[in-house]
Amino acid sequence: MRPSGRASDELRPIRITRRFTRHAEGSVLIEFGETRVVCNVSVEEKVPPFLKGKGQGWITAEYGMLPRATKERTQREAAKGKQGGRTMEIQRLIGRSLRAMVDLTKLGERTFTVDCDVIQADGGTRTASITGGCVALVDALDHLRGAKGLAANPLLHLVASVSVGIREGAPILDLDYIEDSSADTDSNYVMSEGGGFIEVQGTAERGTFSRAQLEAMTALAEKGIRELFAHQRQALGQK
Amino acid sequence: MRPSGRASDELRPIRITRRFTRHAEGSVLIEFGETRVVCNVSVEEKVPPFLKGKGQGWITAEYGMLPRATKERTQREAAKGKQGGRTMEIQRLIGRSLRAMVDLTKLGERTFTVDCDVIQADGGTRTASITGGCVALVDALDHLRGAKGLAANPLLHLVASVSVGIREGAPILDLDYIEDSSADTDSNYVMSEGGGFIEVQGTAERGTFSRAQLEAMTALAEKGIRELFAHQRQALGQK
Amino acid sequence: MRPSGRASDELRPIRITRRFTRHAEGSVLIEFGETRVVCNVSVEEKVPPFLKGKGQGWITAEYGMLPRATKERTQREAAKGKQGGRTMEIQRLIGRSLRAMVDLTKLGERTFTVDCDVIQADGGTRTASITGGCVALVDALDHLRGAKGLAANPLLHLVASVSVGIREGAPILDLDYIEDSSADTDSNYVMSEGGGFIEVQGTAERGTFSRAQLEAMTALAEKGIRELFAHQRQALGQK
Amino acid sequence: MRPSGRASDELRPIRITRRFTRHAEGSVLIEFGETRVVCNVSVEEKVPPFLKGKGQGWITAEYGMLPRATKERTQREAAKGKQGGRTMEIQRLIGRSLRAMVDLTKLGERTFTVDCDVIQADGGTRTASITGGCVALVDALDHLRGAKGLAANPLLHLVASVSVGIREGAPILDLDYIEDSSADTDSNYVMSEGGGFIEVQGTAERGTFSRAQLEAMTALAEKGIRELFAHQRQALGQK
Amino acid sequence: MRPSGRASDELRPIRITRRFTRHAEGSVLIEFGETRVVCNVSVEEKVPPFLKGKGQGWITAEYGMLPRATKERTQREAAKGKQGGRTMEIQRLIGRSLRAMVDLTKLGERTFTVDCDVIQADGGTRTASITGGCVALVDALDHLRGAKGLAANPLLHLVASVSVGIREGAPILDLDYIEDSSADTDSNYVMSEGGGFIEVQGTAERGTFSRAQLEAMTALAEKGIRELFAHQRQALGQK
Amino acid sequence: MRPSGRASDELRPIRITRRFTRHAEGSVLIEFGETRVVCNVSVEEKVPPFLKGKGQGWITAEYGMLPRATKERTQREAAKGKQGGRTMEIQRLIGRSLRAMVDLTKLGERTFTVDCDVIQADGGTRTASITGGCVALVDALDHLRGAKGLAANPLLHLVASVSVGIREGAPILDLDYIEDSSADTDSNYVMSEGGGFIEVQGTAERGTFSRAQLEAMTALAEKGIRELFAHQRQALGQK
Repeated sequence: MRPSGRASDELRPIRITRRFTRHAEGSVLIEFGETRVVCNVSVEEKVPPFLKGKGQGWITAEYGMLPRATKERTQREAAKGKQGGRTMEIQRLIGRSLRAMVDLTKLGERTFTVDCDVIQADGGTRTASITGGCVALVDALDHLRGAKGLAANPLLHLVASVSVGIREGAPILDLDYIEDSSADTDSNYVMSEGGGFIEVQGTAERGTFSRAQLEAMTALAEKGIRELFAHQRQALGQK
Repeated sequence: MRPSGRASDELRPIRITRRFTRHAEGSVLIEFGETRVVCNVSVEEKVPPFLKGKGQGWITAEYGMLPRATKERTQREAAKGKQGGRTMEIQRLIGRSLRAMVDLTKLGERTFTVDCDVIQADGGTRTASITGGCVALVDALDHLRGAKGLAANPLLHLVASVSVGIREGAPILDLDYIEDSSADTDSNYVMSEGGGFIEVQGTAERGTFSRAQLEAMTALAEKGIRELFAHQRQALGQK
Repeated sequence: MRPSGRASDELRPIRITRRFTRHAEGSVLIEFGETRVVCNVSVEEKVPPFLKGKGQGWITAEYGMLPRATKERTQREAAKGKQGGRTMEIQRLIGRSLRAMVDLTKLGERTFTVDCDVIQADGGTRTASITGGCVALVDALDHLRGAKGLAANPLLHLVASVSVGIREGAPILDLDYIEDSSADTDSNYVMSEGGGFIEVQGTAERGTFSRAQLEAMTALAEKGIRELFAHQRQALGQK
Repeated sequence: MRPSGRASDELRPIRITRRFTRHAEGSVLIEFGETRVVCNVSVEEKVPPFLKGKGQGWITAEYGMLPRATKERTQREAAKGKQGGRTMEIQRLIGRSLRAMVDLTKLGERTFTVDCDVIQADGGTRTASITGGCVALVDALDHLRGAKGLAANPLLHLVASVSVGIREGAPILDLDYIEDSSADTDSNYVMSEGGGFIEVQGTAERGTFSRAQLEAMTALAEKGIRELFAHQRQALGQK
Repeated sequence: MRPSGRASDELRPIRITRRFTRHAEGSVLIEFGETRVVCNVSVEEKVPPFLKGKGQGWITAEYGMLPRATKERTQREAAKGKQGGRTMEIQRLIGRSLRAMVDLTKLGERTFTVDCDVIQADGGTRTASITGGCVALVDALDHLRGAKGLAANPLLHLVASVSVGIREGAPILDLDYIEDSSADTDSNYVMSEGGGFIEVQGTAERGTFSRAQLEAMTALAEKGIRELFAHQRQALGQK
Repeated sequence: MRPSGRASDELRPIRITRRFTRHAEGSVLIEFGETRVVCNVSVEEKVPPFLKGKGQGWITAEYGMLPRATKERTQREAAKGKQGGRTMEIQRLIGRSLRAMVDLTKLGERTFTVDCDVIQADGGTRTASITGGCVALVDALDHLRGAKGLAANPLLHLVASVSVGIREGAPILDLDYIEDSSADTDSNYVMSEGGGFIEVQGTAERGTFSRAQLEAMTALAEKGIRELFAHQRQALGQK
């Protein structure tokens, strides 16, 4: 029995609210149970120095948490004067994942910045950020196509992400904070709607995990992510 | 006629949502029209070094904006590696204002940190932060009194804040972003529920302002702040 | 009776020494009693990025204190690696105040940086900085007009600044450090020579202040600032 | 055919030189072909704040590169004033991996810092760091046991790490820089000598990868890591 | 002929003003011609961590320049967020030089911080800082002896410092900015009143310098520093 | 008798290994006994802003130490977020010294960055850096002349550097760490192969040193540096 009472392959309630704020080209509030993340996409008509003149665009992500998104207050990174290693690692993962959903050569020389800010944290903030950021990015791409009349659609496929863990020897899907704290292995999967893997990250927190457990986690992630694609499609008003 | 169509002495619609997030001892979402600020209060059982052993508590505030709270994306301060002058100035103002509502000697050696994070900005983020932070702080004080059985109530009085400006020669109340950008003078008032002033800040953006205009702004602020106290009382479920 | 023995509406002895250092386009040592501030103006033939190509100039200020300007040594901000909130707040105030004395469109694409460095602090360093910075800026404008043959005079009017406080219920003018530490309310006024207000900042340090007290402080500030304009005119060798 | 001419399941020549520098409690130069990393272990008689008084030890890692370890010079992080996201991500991975090889409760209140500094980079610097850091940590544990007479051996098992990629559709082992640059998928595995997984990180650089490819990479990593354990044992003078 | 018109072995006019500011335990304005430096000494009842419990004191120095002390404005180090290499190098030199004048074991566990702030720069700011810092330190030691009733006098001997250069083949004493800019070799000497060397730093700016030139510079420095000791003695009111 | 058992005028064993790493235009491992420094030279086709358009090149140096190059672990400067004063001072000295060996006007608009990274420290890291950096720079100049067909050879002369100290009253050459810690005076000399001085830095660590001692140190440095030139020539394969 999981602490949350959910079945081992059961996601938390997923809610995706589009147009959450008014200024961003794409803005989504995504909720995985009690985890709530605002994903805002901003479009700028320039690219980073290493891409100048190459005729393609770029997608990057930044991640932050309100100081009291967590059970105990976390020091504000702006006040500390630097982003911590966990923040850097997560925003690099979000950026890589979302770049995989788009043909960068069809963006023009533009940068899409996806800001993922955690309002409330209860486990899975990086997977929620990717899943919500995907929807916000679709909205921003549509906005751009409307505004700029792009000939080609840069969208390749949706991406979504979920966590899987091994707890008391058994794999469980979409861990909340209490489950995550007591899991022996914690992994995060990012997949494309076509069924391919974009990122697989499995970490043993205690002991090690076996090849069979890796395969069981992979199967569970595939199941969960299929359901997330359905949530994304529904939020986007698509069958 | 104001750009917003409001009467010169008319506040925007005010909404105060308590218990907005689950971890903080006090958590309020305050909306002044399209301006939305999350105010979370965290209590820690320690005081800053300069107060150690003095038998009193402390209240401090931090202020931040989501990067896309604004019309154009603002660079994330955590990524820049420092808080800007505007942020510093605002969080110092919020802290001073909220300290005025409490008898610090009745808090015990505790620090209350009020995090004001702007989700969406449309003018008046500092006045909304003070007004919402006040309600969140009342909740945190009540939480502490329940949890710790404090004999005395540290609350002295509510505080609230509003902006007033001079636009086309006439004073107007509670400016939104467009009004603020076109005002000749911009001022912020903080008052106690008893009617005393805690902070008055008037700034000429173009030209100067006269003593008569200063007095007119003061009268308008008093009127607006009285209405804000009614909103606070209603949110707190008090007559 | 004030700790300083002065009448309630009496300024400290004011001394303004022009051409205090040799390299700056304008250089003033201003003394408000024991408070001594060096104000140096530097002119550069460029503007900040947000003004490029707009055909106007800019005025900005920076503020600092020698580490032992204060009673106890203050840590050097260059060694700490950042400017504190108080410094930021003060230099923003000085910059706004001095920009109000000039028609920026008549400067050409130039930046005037006013460095205010406190050699010795005894209360009122920001008001002395504005008052002395004004004189240094007049000298720098004259220098520029001589060197570049500007057709139009960019100077609109002099500005000056003074502090006023409420102490033991009564308003007093131009507080020194001991008076400032024991005042219930502390306010700073900046005015133009024409009599208009540029900035009004009143802060209750203990309790609150009333509308009548605000008006009394305003009247006292007007009186003190009128005297400061006479000192500025005398230093500039003008009637 | 791989650019390096190696068979798809062939490691580069591995060299492990113990006692590479004289001051560290454990010091190893590890070479994966042209990739050369110095791994130095330092022992301090204290633990980080979050472990104080808990009667256990800690292992942490730091990672750096000489500026010209790379083909083009990389800016020195000490001169930039901060460690980049890639550095943070790698040193967190090294630290997690090496903590898995030790029973922290048998270390006493001590911190082992494993400094991995890349002298020359040609792909696989993080996997070489983990594999070399493991040997240096064994030496430091032996040194500590000799010096302090620890009753129990804190070592649980060796760990080693290798990269695997998908290039032109086929999995290849231990990628050098050129292979890495042209691979479609890049993954890193960390395993214990007992055969369990400690960390699996697979990233699609172009397109996505299939479940079958993930399984093929896993099998290839297991083969490569088994060979690395033999190299570690030989370097340690153990059968 | 030197640009300054001085004889090759002639110092600039030296002025030493004691009690220049009121808060510091020792405060000196020193002028080497147009170079003006404020040297303030602060005493704190603590020592740096590496000296805790060793029963001795410490002397350290910090160096800064007002932004417009120089011909062109120099960016404020507090605003840049770090002290430059030149600043670090100079303040380390000042600290070493002044530590040499005192028996640290007779100070008690106290730190003397000597802040040298350049109001106006015209060459020789580091030599003026050392020479003026010495006098301020004597005053601070006397102040401490009066206040704390130290049994033993920690002062060993005065120190002073001067620059010497090679210009058009000939050695010249105490270079101003223009001379310094056109010198082929620039050196700084620090000596004790007893005639011993504390620091010798010679740098070829163009070409190299010969052993004979080094000896000629040394002789010239000895002559100049003897005169500086006379200035220090006179300022201290000693024969 | 010296702690090292060497004669007072005896260098430690010197080893110079060229082409130590593969990417740099010049790469040298230099060993002064147990002190080991990697010197890598990188060439970039640009100059710093202050040289733009002046038709000349630039040479600069950076210095670092592996954290465990020292007896006790030194905190990583990249993790601290800034380079310390000692690092800054040393890299400025290396840069000045190496610029003296080249005619900058014959480099074209190029920057040579000499990275000196200490793998193991046992005294004399700065003198080893200069001596090894010189050889690496010769290799980089030769590489550039080959690659770019420079008409003129920018090399003026070799430079080398050695430390000399006064210990128990007598001068000794090339101090190791133990000797350095117990010396009363510590000095560093940089010379050109032609016999001229580029830099002389003598520092009294305890007491002072006399003119006769300065001259004795100078003579000893000349002797040692002559031997270092022979080592450099031999490493370069020149008579």
